[in-house]
Amino acid sequence: MPRDPRYDILFEPVRIGPKTLKNRFYQVPHCNGVGSNRPGTQAKLREMKAEGGWAAVCTEACSVDPGGQEQAPHEVSSLWDEGDVINLRHMCDSVHRWNALAGVELCHLGLSSPNIDCRGVSIAPVGATSEWSPQTYAHAADEDDIARVQGYFAEAARRAVQAGFDIIYVHAGHAVLTVQFLSRLYNTRTDRYGGPFENRVRFWRETLEQVKRAAGDGAAIATRISVDQLVGPDGVETHGEDIFRVVELFEREGLVDFFDLNVSNLDEWGEDAGTSRFHRANHQAPFTRHIKQHTKLPVINVGRLTSPDDMVQVIISGQADIIGAARPSIADPFLPRKIEEGRVEDIRECIGCNVCILRSDRGGQMVCTQNATSMEEYRRGWHPERFDRAPDPGWVLVVGAGPAGLECARVLAARGYDVHLREALPEIGGHVRQLVRYPGLAEWGRVIDYRAGQLAKATTVAVHRGVGAMTVDEVLAYEAEKVVLATGARWAGDGFSHITMRPIPGVDAASARVCTPEQVIAGKAIGERVLVLDADGYITGVGMAEHLADRGHGVTVVTQHAQVAPQLLYTLELPNVQRMLREKRIAYRPHAWVEAAEEAGGELRVRVYDVYRDGFRRTERPVAGELPRRRGDAADVLACDTLVLVTARIANDGLYKALRARRAEWAARGIKAVYQAGDCYAPRQLAEAIFDGHRIAREFESPDPQIAAPFIRERQIWGSPVYPTLG
Amino acid sequence: MPRDPRYDILFEPVRIGPKTLKNRFYQVPHCNGVGSNRPGTQAKLREMKAEGGWAAVCTEACSVDPGGQEQAPHEVSSLWDEGDVINLRHMCDSVHRWNALAGVELCHLGLSSPNIDCRGVSIAPVGATSEWSPQTYAHAADEDDIARVQGYFAEAARRAVQAGFDIIYVHAGHAVLTVQFLSRLYNTRTDRYGGPFENRVRFWRETLEQVKRAAGDGAAIATRISVDQLVGPDGVETHGEDIFRVVELFEREGLVDFFDLNVSNLDEWGEDAGTSRFHRANHQAPFTRHIKQHTKLPVINVGRLTSPDDMVQVIISGQADIIGAARPSIADPFLPRKIEEGRVEDIRECIGCNVCILRSDRGGQMVCTQNATSMEEYRRGWHPERFDRAPDPGWVLVVGAGPAGLECARVLAARGYDVHLREALPEIGGHVRQLVRYPGLAEWGRVIDYRAGQLAKATTVAVHRGVGAMTVDEVLAYEAEKVVLATGARWAGDGFSHITMRPIPGVDAASARVCTPEQVIAGKAIGERVLVLDADGYITGVGMAEHLADRGHGVTVVTQHAQVAPQLLYTLELPNVQRMLREKRIAYRPHAWVEAAEEAGGELRVRVYDVYRDGFRRTERPVAGELPRRRGDAADVLACDTLVLVTARIANDGLYKALRARRAEWAARGIKAVYQAGDCYAPRQLAEAIFDGHRIAREFESPDPQIAAPFIRERQIWGSPVYPTLG
Repeated sequence: MPRDPRYDILFEPVRIGPKTLKNRFYQVPHCNGVGSNRPGTQAKLREMKAEGGWAAVCTEACSVDPGGQEQAPHEVSSLWDEGDVINLRHMCDSVHRWNALAGVELCHLGLSSPNIDCRGVSIAPVGATSEWSPQTYAHAADEDDIARVQGYFAEAARRAVQAGFDIIYVHAGHAVLTVQFLSRLYNTRTDRYGGPFENRVRFWRETLEQVKRAAGDGAAIATRISVDQLVGPDGVETHGEDIFRVVELFEREGLVDFFDLNVSNLDEWGEDAGTSRFHRANHQAPFTRHIKQHTKLPVINVGRLTSPDDMVQVIISGQADIIGAARPSIADPFLPRKIEEGRVEDIRECIGCNVCILRSDRGGQMVCTQNATSMEEYRRGWHPERFDRAPDPGWVLVVGAGPAGLECARVLAARGYDVHLREALPEIGGHVRQLVRYPGLAEWGRVIDYRAGQLAKATTVAVHRGVGAMTVDEVLAYEAEKVVLATGARWAGDGFSHITMRPIPGVDAASARVCTPEQVIAGKAIGERVLVLDADGYITGVGMAEHLADRGHGVTVVTQHAQVAPQLLYTLELPNVQRMLREKRIAYRPHAWVEAAEEAGGELRVRVYDVYRDGFRRTERPVAGELPRRRGDAADVLACDTLVLVTARIANDGLYKALRARRAEWAARGIKAVYQAGDCYAPRQLAEAIFDGHRIAREFESPDPQIAAPFIRERQIWGSPVYPTLG
Repeated sequence: MPRDPRYDILFEPVRIGPKTLKNRFYQVPHCNGVGSNRPGTQAKLREMKAEGGWAAVCTEACSVDPGGQEQAPHEVSSLWDEGDVINLRHMCDSVHRWNALAGVELCHLGLSSPNIDCRGVSIAPVGATSEWSPQTYAHAADEDDIARVQGYFAEAARRAVQAGFDIIYVHAGHAVLTVQFLSRLYNTRTDRYGGPFENRVRFWRETLEQVKRAAGDGAAIATRISVDQLVGPDGVETHGEDIFRVVELFEREGLVDFFDLNVSNLDEWGEDAGTSRFHRANHQAPFTRHIKQHTKLPVINVGRLTSPDDMVQVIISGQADIIGAARPSIADPFLPRKIEEGRVEDIRECIGCNVCILRSDRGGQMVCTQNATSMEEYRRGWHPERFDRAPDPGWVLVVGAGPAGLECARVLAARGYDVHLREALPEIGGHVRQLVRYPGLAEWGRVIDYRAGQLAKATTVAVHRGVGAMTVDEVLAYEAEKVVLATGARWAGDGFSHITMRPIPGVDAASARVCTPEQVIAGKAIGERVLVLDADGYITGVGMAEHLADRGHGVTVVTQHAQVAPQLLYTLELPNVQRMLREKRIAYRPHAWVEAAEEAGGELRVRVYDVYRDGFRRTERPVAGELPRRRGDAADVLACDTLVLVTARIANDGLYKALRARRAEWAARGIKAVYQAGDCYAPRQLAEAIFDGHRIAREFESPDPQIAAPFIRERQIWGSPVYPTLG
């Protein structure tokens, strides 16, 4: 199908200095958790997007100086030595294969440089530290230091040209070093680099000059600008004077070929990479749309844009010339091509969950809820849109149309299998149907929408809805060749958690005053005073609390953690979660757990204790049967009307166990194998459940697809060359 | 000098199955942050200890299964494929060069497997998760799963033999999978692997059988046993029956050649790797010393032992046969050899600060406060005991005998330089003199003791104490060839912090009611009610709070963090810190900061606000001069008698700046260069300040020793071989 002419504007080329973007789709710099240290992984991730139609794809932030590095466990790229050049050249070559441009974002974090692994010392306009670099202060730079670091930028730019990059950035988003010089919040200097605008912009301007000179004529030069630190008049403001003057100055002096705009400080960069919980698509527009009035140069802006209609609006409204995307390009590397081919309904839209950031900030490779192949392109050889046809596809029963079952059925069908996907309930989606009713998580429904759409198109899948929970007899009678169970998980109803590994006495979701999250969403009666007991620390505890506070209940969260939803630190949501809790008057009791509950006097009396109530000195005389420290027994009784249990997830593995028990009958029924996909095998985050369904379908002919096949592990192998060598 | 005959017993050989330890010094498995992925770094770290006289050195925990992995950012070793064999063979070869044995600790974390990077799924006796693996549940293993995982252990053992290991462990410390099966806390099974002791020990026993069979006759087999989970009768207890029976069973069945004992659960393994704040040397003895009554096999025990007298006592008391060491071997890889050579006073004793763990748990390479060369042996080519003589050593003035100055002078002297080390105060040690007066930090004084001893022996260093702060004229008049300033840092006295980047109105440590930590230690008068304002989150805020609580003051900590001293999560101290705060009735106000203070009515009135008091929705209509969200203005007035400021460290760089300003005079005075070492260049953790002094001395002839020379970066280089390859 040809593309919708409404979208033609998105496919117009845009000139950026010496280069031309073939269309308006642009993958802005984004982290992936491996930087330039896993060159195959890095290159293949970016290459997929080039193949998928993006006019340009960029690295993440790329360190120019071991002293100014975002690193460990936030692995980024670097251009310090020839080893980096070799590794990033492979990325450029891979991207160029698809007629796309490759960009690199030269970066120095200034006073936010943890330098955990390399042990360098950073510089900044002032000798200070930040939340990002605990106890690691930057050196207050003198002019020699400034010249030296600008020299690193120039060296890195020369290496970038050697590697083959078409676009070279000087990073000034997220309040990195360039912005630390510009912003009066950090820059209190009284020398040539502080005071009036001309002085505060000097570091950035000179750095651009040096980078431009080092890059020569072949590369386009860009700068990414955080147009608003979002801290009010103490920092850079989009409607203050500094940003307009920066834009006008850099254009006037011919220092850049285009501008890449975003918002925020590093310590709240979730205001840039906003989750759908707090930020709608194109949420940066109020802060960025007027910038184009100050420049004729092309402007990029991001904003979790997944709809071509929204993109067209961004262009024709004059907000931006180029559609920047990080997360939408992760969720669907083929987004531009799908628009071009008139297959808009095939776009796998980003749900704005930020699990990508969660995982790379926790020290692993990025993952994506929607795109199970992200970061697996190289190490597992997975292409997001192409599937090996099974040599001898048979027919498969998939039980359960939750996220893992949907994905498994989708991929099996794409591989040529005949699939029956049977769902007990009238609607597909599994527990995602509940998640979308948590405050702010409606967009997570795209997990279902995309897969429902793909399955509707697939010719070899039949989806049976509302068939009720299958019994073991029904499964056997189905006589499928292979069976995949994807029956999900449920929340424990007895207070079981990993904290005590036991149920909580007096707690039972079968009673009126105790609820699981499923029961809350299903509408079980909730009293006025609610305790949410949260051992999980991710989306569900805070989701329950906000859901019920929004309905007028008085809510207190009890958790063993130091704060509510600590995992949302890694999705960058914690500051706004904390503000939300305060604004909605949700109380919380950290470092606490429940030892028992009893119903009395028309209420539930819950015994809450401090998990650190025992003595801090260990005994010198341990005795069997006694805690080897002073045992604390203090507890408070909190009275409530309803207790909501977010304590543990329990795999729905009853059907599997029953089938296993009757394994002897399988052969007679023609059943060769039964596998478990996703949460019914082991509960996990949504991205991992979908990955598991996907992986099983990819590896369906392996000796045991229940267990992942080996994958390439990029690392130094002893005897291979090392870079750099010692003096 | 020959060794003291009292220590002869430490040098007796010990037979362990088919192998013999040449003496009783044994480096137990410990993490270093790089695992088998940086093979040169791994090998050289371990080799130094072999050279330093340890009879055996081991890897850290070594993963046998991508589904049961402690990984990212806690990087450990693995034996999954041929790449691992190549990398660890290099370690074995390096260790064997010094006639030492190499050990590997095969490990599966069970329900504590985050599997962040590899995306595998773990198994456990029960389908549960832990604090270590948020939202990542283990699969409740059936017998097939158990057999499969035991097969991974066997495969890894075969690979270990290929790599050349002499000792192969099955890990059962820290409540890993083996212990999860043994412990009734986790194991609630009713099959052959649950219930009576014989069933609960079956997984461990069978795993040992398989490993022993796979290893053949060439390797000694060990198991590391956490003899007490320290959770009382719910878990494994050292005086309970299970541990005795394990030891007796494994000996009787000939499954192991020796036992390596420790204590604790994974979620509080700081009870094993105890800091000096909470645990004295040999703190595990009450839990381990009776185990030898149950076995004739050799027994190892750790306990931060650095004194040969203590070690002798451990042996002759019958507590253990072999002295296990992790941290003491990091602080001084040459500890055994120094005892052997009669140089006990040269031992660089571990201070028990756990910065080693802090750094590897934060995702970088391990570092060591005492041993600046740790983990730098390969990538920077540093030997802990050998120093290149400078080609043309001149003479150097070092100003300031704090940690960086002491270390710089020590290394410069070892390299042949003539050094004058001048200290303003009567005593050397800089801010470490203050740290040792914080509760529990007395052992940190070893930083000074070691260096004082070494400098006293050095023939080319003169230490001048009590000379007062040097003026710029004095430095110039000194006419040294090169000058190193190591003048340290101080705590801000005006409330400046990275939170607001401004002083706090009304706060001044020159006034009676406001104190810096230095003033507290120096004895400035402190009132009854104390607020400790802590932006730092490491040792000082909690140190001040405990110091003052111990003296009877009522203390409240105000911090922007979610809890007091969050960095001590990474030193494994947070649980006991939390218990201590509760026990000593130290209150805290998290997520809070101070906007102003004023003295009135004979007290200090401090306006404390919630750092998340602003609205959580961002405005759609940003305006210059206004915060782009609802601005909160709520604040509480907390009245106190004294406010202690732990808000920011300020480099003492006045002397440097004054010298720089008179650079024109240097040449006439024969001064070729002036450098800044440690905190006076940029404040940092103690280990980094010492590293900086060390590094500058090592690189003293480089063009600019102020800036670190490049080092080898181990990583995959595109084009080099990868392991494993795809299908």
